[in-house]
Amino acid sequence: MLTEKELKEYSDNARASYLPHISIDCVVFGFHEGMLKVLLLHMKNENGWYLPGGFVLKDEPIELSANRILKERTGLDEIFLQQFHVFGDPQRSKDHFEMYKDMLPRAENWFTDRFLTIGYYALVDFCDAIPQPDIFSADCIWRDLDDLPELKLDHALILKTALDTLRLQLNYQPIGYNLMPKEFTMPELQKLYETILDKKLDRRNFQRRMLGFGILKRSEKPRKGGAHKAPYLYSFDLENYQAALTEGFKGGW
Amino acid sequence: MLTEKELKEYSDNARASYLPHISIDCVVFGFHEGMLKVLLLHMKNENGWYLPGGFVLKDEPIELSANRILKERTGLDEIFLQQFHVFGDPQRSKDHFEMYKDMLPRAENWFTDRFLTIGYYALVDFCDAIPQPDIFSADCIWRDLDDLPELKLDHALILKTALDTLRLQLNYQPIGYNLMPKEFTMPELQKLYETILDKKLDRRNFQRRMLGFGILKRSEKPRKGGAHKAPYLYSFDLENYQAALTEGFKGGW
Repeated sequence: MLTEKELKEYSDNARASYLPHISIDCVVFGFHEGMLKVLLLHMKNENGWYLPGGFVLKDEPIELSANRILKERTGLDEIFLQQFHVFGDPQRSKDHFEMYKDMLPRAENWFTDRFLTIGYYALVDFCDAIPQPDIFSADCIWRDLDDLPELKLDHALILKTALDTLRLQLNYQPIGYNLMPKEFTMPELQKLYETILDKKLDRRNFQRRMLGFGILKRSEKPRKGGAHKAPYLYSFDLENYQAALTEGFKGGW
Repeated sequence: MLTEKELKEYSDNARASYLPHISIDCVVFGFHEGMLKVLLLHMKNENGWYLPGGFVLKDEPIELSANRILKERTGLDEIFLQQFHVFGDPQRSKDHFEMYKDMLPRAENWFTDRFLTIGYYALVDFCDAIPQPDIFSADCIWRDLDDLPELKLDHALILKTALDTLRLQLNYQPIGYNLMPKEFTMPELQKLYETILDKKLDRRNFQRRMLGFGILKRSEKPRKGGAHKAPYLYSFDLENYQAALTEGFKGGW
């Protein structure tokens, strides 16, 4: 929670810089070696957690706003952010309204407005990120998805919707390009899917279906070392991968 | 295009009633007996076509705004509208800006603001709709998808994105409940998919895959009449249909 002085400064700057009534919230999923986490902010002087978010500069394309916000919170740049839903319940930011309404007259007060928020999600390697708190928060940290704290406003709904969308997306779009090493084995890729879906998959079905999508290239040489039969190495066929991102997988209707 | 007097009245009312900077555009696909069309507005005193759209009342949930706009243009109520994307290029409504900027001072002029627009699409039986023009338009009519006029602003992009989303959605979500009769044959359902995808599908693959989704119930009695073998009749299993709408089809990962 901001002090009165901070709120005044923040509101003055926000009204001068940003479009009113519109915010962006980012659900940043972090994957690394079989673990899936989500980036959350722990508020100053409050026992509350939020998704990282921000606002849209008056002349800024919204995709750039989302990227700017992600970069400010993680140091990561040029990450594929997927817009997934606008949350537009008039009551969704009521708690902010209540928290700040008596500290500044309504016409000057940024947080007494109604905000629609545009949800974006990203999937990154959490080892690559350097989480940074914002002005409202004391901490910015990765939390396990199966050990989440209570989230403020409608951020639990936003997070759930992002996770549902990501899981659905595994059925019709490729994933993993910025998460896997250049070459990887089929079990390594399967682990990514299993972690996101939070369930075990059948090895043979996974391989057959994944190869059917036509987005993988098999390397001529198997991985070196080890006494057993060396596993095949795969890499993404970037041309087909990109096409599938926009058109969906082959093997649809 | 509005006259100066109309613009003044419209702007005064809009500023009092709606959230600034936010609009809604609806891509209404109409299907009937193997034909797919889209609902477009032909502007007064201009050779331009637009998608039906509108704004969000200050205290209105955005889903209700979309439904209100659809009802005003088609008379149809309680139609499933799918939110699919926010279009947020700062230049997207530049033509409106240019058209109206000299007619009213900027602070009073609704159309000199930048607007983000939230896209919704719906799929309806076009025989059920009664298209109604709005204040900006002389006509509101169904146009064939393969004979589209030039669309104003970024409405061609919005329409293309909606169609891409609808086609992708056929791979992971059910469709057709408000389009098919209570009982229908497999070829009748296949025709809906073929029309949306604009291509022929293999009869046996279609049947196998569709039955695999688990959203159809087969009637005990085949359709009556006709000299040949009577085709089986199907209806949607509404419980599974609803579940698949939120969770995607079984048969994913």
